[in-house]
Parts: sequence; structure tokens; C-alpha cells
Amino acid sequence: MFKLLFAFTVLILSSNASVQDFCVADLKGPESPAGYSCKSVTKVTVNDFVFSGLSAAGNTSNIIKASVSPAFAAQFPGLNGLGLSAARLDLAPGGVVPFHTHPGASEVLLVVQGSITAAFVSSANTVYLKTIKKGELMVFPQGLLHFQVNAVGFNSVAYVFFSSSNPGLQITDFALFANDLSTKLVEATTFLDEAQIKKLKGVLGGTG
Amino acid sequence: MFKLLFAFTVLILSSNASVQDFCVADLKGPESPAGYSCKSVTKVTVNDFVFSGLSAAGNTSNIIKASVSPAFAAQFPGLNGLGLSAARLDLAPGGVVPFHTHPGASEVLLVVQGSITAAFVSSANTVYLKTIKKGELMVFPQGLLHFQVNAVGFNSVAYVFFSSSNPGLQITDFALFANDLSTKLVEATTFLDEAQIKKLKGVLGGTG
Amino acid sequence: MFKLLFAFTVLILSSNASVQDFCVADLKGPESPAGYSCKSVTKVTVNDFVFSGLSAAGNTSNIIKASVSPAFAAQFPGLNGLGLSAARLDLAPGGVVPFHTHPGASEVLLVVQGSITAAFVSSANTVYLKTIKKGELMVFPQGLLHFQVNAVGFNSVAYVFFSSSNPGLQITDFALFANDLSTKLVEATTFLDEAQIKKLKGVLGGTG
Amino acid sequence: MFKLLFAFTVLILSSNASVQDFCVADLKGPESPAGYSCKSVTKVTVNDFVFSGLSAAGNTSNIIKASVSPAFAAQFPGLNGLGLSAARLDLAPGGVVPFHTHPGASEVLLVVQGSITAAFVSSANTVYLKTIKKGELMVFPQGLLHFQVNAVGFNSVAYVFFSSSNPGLQITDFALFANDLSTKLVEATTFLDEAQIKKLKGVLGGTG
Amino acid sequence: MFKLLFAFTVLILSSNASVQDFCVADLKGPESPAGYSCKSVTKVTVNDFVFSGLSAAGNTSNIIKASVSPAFAAQFPGLNGLGLSAARLDLAPGGVVPFHTHPGASEVLLVVQGSITAAFVSSANTVYLKTIKKGELMVFPQGLLHFQVNAVGFNSVAYVFFSSSNPGLQITDFALFANDLSTKLVEATTFLDEAQIKKLKGVLGGTG
Amino acid sequence: MFKLLFAFTVLILSSNASVQDFCVADLKGPESPAGYSCKSVTKVTVNDFVFSGLSAAGNTSNIIKASVSPAFAAQFPGLNGLGLSAARLDLAPGGVVPFHTHPGASEVLLVVQGSITAAFVSSANTVYLKTIKKGELMVFPQGLLHFQVNAVGFNSVAYVFFSSSNPGLQITDFALFANDLSTKLVEATTFLDEAQIKKLKGVLGGTG
Repeated sequence: MFKLLFAFTVLILSSNASVQDFCVADLKGPESPAGYSCKSVTKVTVNDFVFSGLSAAGNTSNIIKASVSPAFAAQFPGLNGLGLSAARLDLAPGGVVPFHTHPGASEVLLVVQGSITAAFVSSANTVYLKTIKKGELMVFPQGLLHFQVNAVGFNSVAYVFFSSSNPGLQITDFALFANDLSTKLVEATTFLDEAQIKKLKGVLGGTG
Repeated sequence: MFKLLFAFTVLILSSNASVQDFCVADLKGPESPAGYSCKSVTKVTVNDFVFSGLSAAGNTSNIIKASVSPAFAAQFPGLNGLGLSAARLDLAPGGVVPFHTHPGASEVLLVVQGSITAAFVSSANTVYLKTIKKGELMVFPQGLLHFQVNAVGFNSVAYVFFSSSNPGLQITDFALFANDLSTKLVEATTFLDEAQIKKLKGVLGGTG
Repeated sequence: MFKLLFAFTVLILSSNASVQDFCVADLKGPESPAGYSCKSVTKVTVNDFVFSGLSAAGNTSNIIKASVSPAFAAQFPGLNGLGLSAARLDLAPGGVVPFHTHPGASEVLLVVQGSITAAFVSSANTVYLKTIKKGELMVFPQGLLHFQVNAVGFNSVAYVFFSSSNPGLQITDFALFANDLSTKLVEATTFLDEAQIKKLKGVLGGTG
Repeated sequence: MFKLLFAFTVLILSSNASVQDFCVADLKGPESPAGYSCKSVTKVTVNDFVFSGLSAAGNTSNIIKASVSPAFAAQFPGLNGLGLSAARLDLAPGGVVPFHTHPGASEVLLVVQGSITAAFVSSANTVYLKTIKKGELMVFPQGLLHFQVNAVGFNSVAYVFFSSSNPGLQITDFALFANDLSTKLVEATTFLDEAQIKKLKGVLGGTG
Repeated sequence: MFKLLFAFTVLILSSNASVQDFCVADLKGPESPAGYSCKSVTKVTVNDFVFSGLSAAGNTSNIIKASVSPAFAAQFPGLNGLGLSAARLDLAPGGVVPFHTHPGASEVLLVVQGSITAAFVSSANTVYLKTIKKGELMVFPQGLLHFQVNAVGFNSVAYVFFSSSNPGLQITDFALFANDLSTKLVEATTFLDEAQIKKLKGVLGGTG
Repeated sequence: MFKLLFAFTVLILSSNASVQDFCVADLKGPESPAGYSCKSVTKVTVNDFVFSGLSAAGNTSNIIKASVSPAFAAQFPGLNGLGLSAARLDLAPGGVVPFHTHPGASEVLLVVQGSITAAFVSSANTVYLKTIKKGELMVFPQGLLHFQVNAVGFNSVAYVFFSSSNPGLQITDFALFANDLSTKLVEATTFLDEAQIKKLKGVLGGTG
């Protein structure tokens, strides 16, 4: 009996040789609109599906008193093509993740320490604002502006999860002030005062 | 022969009775994540697939000297579920469509009159800026911040097309200043000065 | 200026009146293959986007010494159509989430307390097994068999996130033994011994 | 032990109460771009997932000596939203399924009796033509023109499967000649001679 | 402050190094079912997102008195993977774009000069016919047969936009008559007369 | 006239040179989450779209008295990216395809000889069981456990079709017992007795 079943096993296994249950990112291969190329299955190990990079607190010794550590497909290759990714937020007292969007994904936030005030703004300009406590979840629909600020006097920590292995991250301030877009064009397209723009360009390293 | 073939015709037609080639929006039915409910095929006419609302120039007698007229599924029901929509931009001299995103779609712009300076900013904060002339196209990838400004001393007109029948439109200034999000939170999450925020809240009708 | 800009605001807002940034589940409306019907935007509040049901530990006083608390679209309506959902795992000492699949989603697991030994099995029958510590992530590709067991002598807690607002959950033991599928057919299709099947049917409430 | 596990069972089952493993078509509910509404799970039986309508030969006593019997979601409600459908082709000697397309799906053909000559034409106008024998498969990529003709002197039978539960079916001759599109416009847009058009309009019941 | 924020900037930027906001086509790399390979971001410039090839009128000195100029991903690499593409139609007096389909996309047409009579035919063989004036839009659902003819005595110009960066284009006449499919098979699968087929094969360069 | 039209033909053909109607798998190129790389169109022939490997009966001289012969994209390259694949089931008297899932696809089964008893189990642990006769279809929703057993005293044959060119196949017994997952962990995660597990590991070649 063993022999016969083993024959069957081999048949099935060989038919599965090319089955693509997953596509661990080969960061050196060509990319397509669907994501990174797949690493050869023979080189894949469990470590491709495990990520330890979000275990430790990020460095919050910066002006926003916060850090955002991504676990996208580029950092966590096992996620490639699976429609999921993650990030860790550390917010020191007074810490802020400024207004930003994820162009390619919706987001769910889970507070694991402290408490975080978060909001998103809809296309109709309505603000959906709430203070989220430890163990609570909040969802931010795809592409909409949102922010997170620490709501307590000690460190808060959250993990966020995205509906894409490549959600993108566009921080509005950086998009407006941390490049060489001319002050004149920023002024024309934001209604902000010239002095305000120049001040923030100075802070964020923008030119023009 | 006619009779036999006619029998065949009837067979095929009846099998097609419920074929869903399209799903013209019934704006009064329930909505799903995939879009509006479908109008009964028996009530659909060619006029559901034609839209005249973008023929005339929009009103540019406003502070941005510009107008944006949408032809999304809500205005043009034949688009529902087909992965496409449109809008018309009219830009008087000095006219500007301020920084904005479309949370759910990529966009292609076609200039049909005049000339328009447009740009988008990538997640890496790089600016892709160009002046587009009549008959030229520019594409804005999904969810990224972009703007359009008139580049000539007379009216410019463009049509834009989206990769969704419901692309959304979030104008950054309106999202930040045209609602009741407190000045304190806007300040914390944008790095803008309080005076600047209050000024723009005043202009855009925001409170708090 | 205020007046003119306000006019523009109204124009834009009205054009956005029907924009569908999100589709909060109306659990009483018709369902479609894309998910639940959308609740009217005028009835949506921030509470639709926040979920507190995973804050407290689940009850682990059961045979598996574990609990799985879902936050799918049915529990957390704001997720509907956004391609994301979540669940909380509580594992007492000796606790086990038995072999199961999610037919419609990939999963990322985040350990927030203790340590969990988890594994998935690929189509080629390879086991990807690892003990995940607090703050670490593991991904389980869509539809593949996987399990989680507590790896420490005290309570472990994890949150899992899915790439669908309706991932499904099929626990293999329940599918095989907790219904009226005849012992004879279970025997024929699993190679398990009759006595074993009858024993587990007894435990899990199956008949036949 | 039974009691405790039973409690766990109930917990899991209740959390699954709203899980949408499938969406059997409710043909009387509203349709969305994603398909038909879902029948209540409590009313679903195994018969919704089984279809007997393709067991018997179709009637080939017609001019094309062939019949096409669909099993799309409208006929076979269990397919709704699952990305699959089927049809049966019966081809008497000399039987032909004329040039047609499926606007919304790719197709795989399986010959179960006789032999069929089939072809599709690519966008580059290349013809991919082959005679398919019993037990062989041929694939027709989405939306491309293709046909099937009986290659033997007795009845041939094939089953075809589509990558959508609503693939559509547009037979070119019927689209051109079986409606009220004016002969003049057909002539202008097909380069066919007026006499030819009028002849086929006559056969197929077209007017104008 | 500058220093600290700059540190934060660098952190964010480096995490974004591999973010894939877009996938400009590298026409020499391998293709996948999702489209062309992506050009290295370091080689991408704004010119990849701008296309001037549709600015000038196409040559209408041909038998159909019309020209179709595509801006698909192969011509306009910035569109790759973004779910959009375009084409320009020039129609001299009497000009016609003959019956055709786009196997992979829906289409929206915008008339920018003159007036165009257009129609599509549904799976139920219903004709949706309308004369579209300058500034008006018409939508053609995916995969369905449609045509456009000039409705005025001077040149008409339209731009069309597709819901895919690779919509395909299959002109029915070319598919039937511009290749080596035998006259006998064309006759059998179209019901056209042999003489008619041979005449059009002659005109269009077909053989067999 | 010929000359002019031919010019038009050439224009259209050249614009189509890069159209991707299909993406025949190049099994040696890089894979992406969307599937295999595309073979050069110039090397594609009709044989890429035809598959003869399911014409002959599979070998049922094994313990399950059954065989499963796949025609996935790895075996039938023309299917790559088209959202379809197939397999042939041969069931000798007493033959069984044991409980299994397809992680990435729904399935439709067509019986072409004999009669087959099949069932799937939903997330709510409901069994949908039916004996399917020649010419009948049964659908198995994505990712759910299902099986097929011969219902007659002679050979039964079925063809199954999947909603993906890469559906995957995970046979529960092989996933549990045909690898090196320790008996202790299998016991903990399945509730099966140690003796039962060791017996099946022995039969299926598992270790540990």
C-alpha cells in the first residue's frame, strides 16, 4: 500500500512543483505593476515570512517626536503580492504623525500602548476624529488624508496594517515643502503665504 | 431557413436576457462597494451612455479663477462599474486647480485649449512638473498630490479621465481648512502657523 | 473674496455629494459579491470606523484554551469593501488555534504578549514553522492551512489582519467532525480510522 | 469536555453567521456591477450549486445546425460572483458556432464527443486555428473573435468554461444584421455590399 | 530643529526608496500578465508621464478617410499599470472607424471638433446610436462592437480613453478578411457570400 | 484603393505590435505575483493554446484508486494570466479524491462518464453534498474543503475548471501527514490521537 500511495504522492507533488502559493520578493529581479519578481521557491525559508524589524521602538528624538517604521514588501519580502503590509508607530509625549495619505491602500490602526487621537477627512471634507485606546482599532479608507497624535503624557505605540503590500506613504508637508517646487507655485496651489512656505521649506530642506 | 434561424435567434436572445454588459446607475437603489445598483435594462436608453454636461465652460468667477465639472457615475450613470470617468477643467487667466488627490483613481489630462502647467509629487517627494500644450496628455498616478495652473493669458480648457467611475476628489486646502478640525490639531499635524491656519479657515469657511 | 471662494466650495461639495470614499456596511440591506450594501453617508459617524470589541481578552475556558474574536465587516461595519479585517487571538497556557484556513484572504499575525509557535503548510506540503515573539510579524499566504499554539507558560495574545473585509474561517476539525457528514464518507475521504472519527464527532457534536 | 468545546463551537459558529463564502444569485434582488444580490444563506441548498441543464443535447435543427446552452449566473445561481461559468455546444454534421466574442471573459473549450475545428483571431489579425479532438482543450483569450465548427460527420459535443459568472456572448452576425441599424450605416462601417447586408438582415430578422 | 527634522526626513525617504507609486514601462524587460516591467525610478523623468504624439492630426488619406493614433502603454510608457490609455481619432468628411472592439477595456469618447455618429451593440443585439457633438461624451462598455462615423462635412476629431493601459483593438473587417483564414471557413462562420469575402480579402490583403 | 487601405492596415498593425491580447507563459523567465513572464509573441503558435495532456485516462493504480491530472499554467502555458485552468479526475471503482482545497480559485466540476458523489463544507460547517451524474455541473466556492468519490461500480471521469490559471491544490491529508511536522504538533492542532497520526505518517511518508 505504501508504495502505491507514495506513487500518488509523487504525482501530486510533481504537479505542484510550479504552484505559486506565494511570491516572496526578489528585490533584484524586474518589477511589474503587480509587484516584485518571485524568489525561487527552493530558496524560500520560513524567515521570508517572519519579520522582526518592528519589535523594537523607533527613534522618536526628532521634531515630530515620532517614528514610522515600515514593513512593506521591500522590507518584508514574504508580503509581496499578498495584499497586506504593516508599519509601527512610536509616539513620544507630544508626538505626531503629520497629515498624510497612502495612495494605494486602506489602513487599520491598532493601539498597543497608550492612547492616540486620530482622524481622517473625507472627500466631502468631513472630519472623522476619535481618541483610540489600547486594544482598539480604527480604519482609514484608501487614499484619504489622516493623522495620528499621542493623546497621553507617555509613549504610545500602534501597529498599522494596509490592504496592499505596497501602500505608499505621502506626507503632505514633505510633498509640499521638502523638494524644489518653487515657492511661487506652492503659493498659487495652496493659498499659503509666502513667508509660511519659505519657513517650512527651510525646516524641511526644500529649495526654490 | 428564416424560420429555423429565427428559432435559433430567439434561443440565443433569451439566454442573453440577463446578460449584464453594463450596469447603468440607479441612483435610488442600494449602493455596494462595487458601485451603484443597476437600472433595469428595459429602461436603459442611449442617453444613459451620453453626457452633455461638460460641453459648456464652467464658471470661473471665483477665487481660484477655475472650475472643475465632474462626470462621475453620479452625474453620468452609464459609467457605473466600467472603470472610467471624466471631468472638465476651465482655467481663466491666473486660474488654478489647487493641490488635490483622487483617492481611488489614476488620471490622464488632455489639454484642448491653451496651455496648462501641471505637476504631481511622488511618495519620494520628487516633483514631476511640465507645461502641457493643446493636444498633449499627462498622467497622474493614483492617489498622488497634483495641481494644474493656467500657463497662458487666456482661458485654458482640459478634460481629465479617471481609472474608476468613482475616483473621488480631495482638495488639500479644503480638507485642512474647510471643516471644524480645531486650529490646534491642524497646527500640530501640518506645522503651519496658527495665524496662517486661522486666515485660511476664515477664507474657506472652517471653524474651530 | 470669501463669497467667491465659498461659491466654489459649494460647487465642489455638491459635486462630491455622491462620492463613495467608503461603504460602511448596512447589515440589513442586500448583499452583493462585493460585500454588504452601504449605509447612507448622512448616518455614518466616526464610530463606524472604530472598533472596541477586541480590547478585552476572549474567554479561554474551553477545550482549546484559546479564543478567536473576529472584527470582520459583520462586526466592524466600517471595514466593508476596504480589503481589510482583523481578529484577536487569546491563548492560555497550552492554548491552541487548531489547523484552519481563510478561504478568501492572506493573514498577518502580530504577537503583542507572550510568544506563539505558528506554521503554515504550502501546496507542496512544506511546513513553514517558527516561534514568533512579542512585536514580531508572520504572514500566512491566502487559503493555506495554518495553526497557532502558545509557546509560553502564561497567556499569549496576538492580533491578526486579513487582506479582505470578509476573509472566512474554516477550522479543519469542525469542517470534518462538527456536522452530519457520514462517518463512512469522512473515513473514505480522510483515511482516518472509524473509531477516531466517531470519537471526534462525539466531542464536536457531529452526527452520522 | 464536551460542554466546553461545544461552547467554543457556538462562539465560532456565531462569528461565522455572516461569513460570505458564496453569494448565490437572488435573481429578483438589485444587481450591482459585481453581480446579482445574494440569496439568504438560510435558503441556500446544495441544489443551488448543482446544474443539470447541460445534461441533454441542445436542439440543432436550425440553420447553423448547432446549439449553445448557457450556464451563466442567471441560469446557475450558485456561480454568482465566483468568476466561473459554462456552456454546452452541440454541433450536428456541418454545425457551426459563428464568429463571436465574450466581452467579459476568457474561455476554455473541452471536446467530449467528436472533433471540432476552432480558431481565434488576435488584435494583430493572426489566426490561431486547430482541430481539437475528444479530451483536448483549447483556450480563447478574453474578448477576441473566435468560432467553432464540427470537424466530423456526426454530432460533436463540447463544454466551454468562462473566467466570469457573466461572460456575455456577442455573435457578430447577430450584432450586425439582427437589429434596426440602417443598411447604410452597416455598409459604411463594415465595407460589405448593400445586397449582402440586406440578404442577411432578411435571414436574421433585421430591419432598416 | 532643522537637524532633527532632517533626520526624520531621511528616515522616511529611505523607507520610501522602494515605494512603487508608478511603473513606467521598460519596453525591453520581460512582460507579465500585469503589463510591462518597470523602468528604474532613477531613470524616470516627467517626460515619461507626458505624451505629445496625439497633438497632430493623423493621416486620413486612406480608404476609411480616418486615422486612429494610439497612446497605449507601448507608446506612452508612463501609463503602464495605471488602468488608463488613450487614442486620437481623425475623421475626414465621410470618414469611418469601422466596427471594432477593445477586448480588454471600456472606452469613453470626447468629441473636440465637429460631430460624430457613434453606436455600440449590446449582447442582446440592441443598438445604442447617437450623434455626439463637440464637448459631449459617450461611453462604450467593455468588449462590445462599436463604430464611429463623421457626421459633418468637415474634419471631426475625438479623443478616446480606455479603462486599461493595454485595451487592445480588434477591427472586425481586418480580423475576418486581412489574414489567411480560408474563404470557406469565413463563409461558414459568417454566412457571407463567397464573392463578398473574396472581394474584401482582395481589398484588405487577405489570402486563402 | 487597395494601396490606401493597405497603408491604413499597416498603420493599425504597427500600432498593435505590442498589444498584449494574451501572455503565454515563458516558464524560464521571472515570475511575478500576476503569473509567469510572457513568451515573445513571435514565438507563439496555436499549440500554446491547445492542450492534449488530459485526453488519456490517468493512472488509478494507487491507494486512492484515483488520479488528478492538472492543466494549470505550468502545464498549459496559454492559460497564463487568463483566469482559467483545468484538471482531469479519473476515479476507478472505490476511487476517491480526498478532502482538499484550492487556495486561489473556485472550481466547477463536469462529469463526463459515470457518476460522482461530491461535497464541500462551508465556513459555517454546513455540508453541501450531492451525487452528480454525467453532464451535470457542481461548483465549489473558493478555498473551501471539498472531496469527490466515485458513485458507481465502474470508472468515472470528470473535468474540473478553475477561476485562476494557478489555483493551487492542498490535500488535507498530505498537508498534515506527508511532511516533517512533529507528531506532537499535529496532535495538538488536530485533536487526532497519536497512534492515528503515526499510522498516517507511515502511509504517506511523513516523519517526526
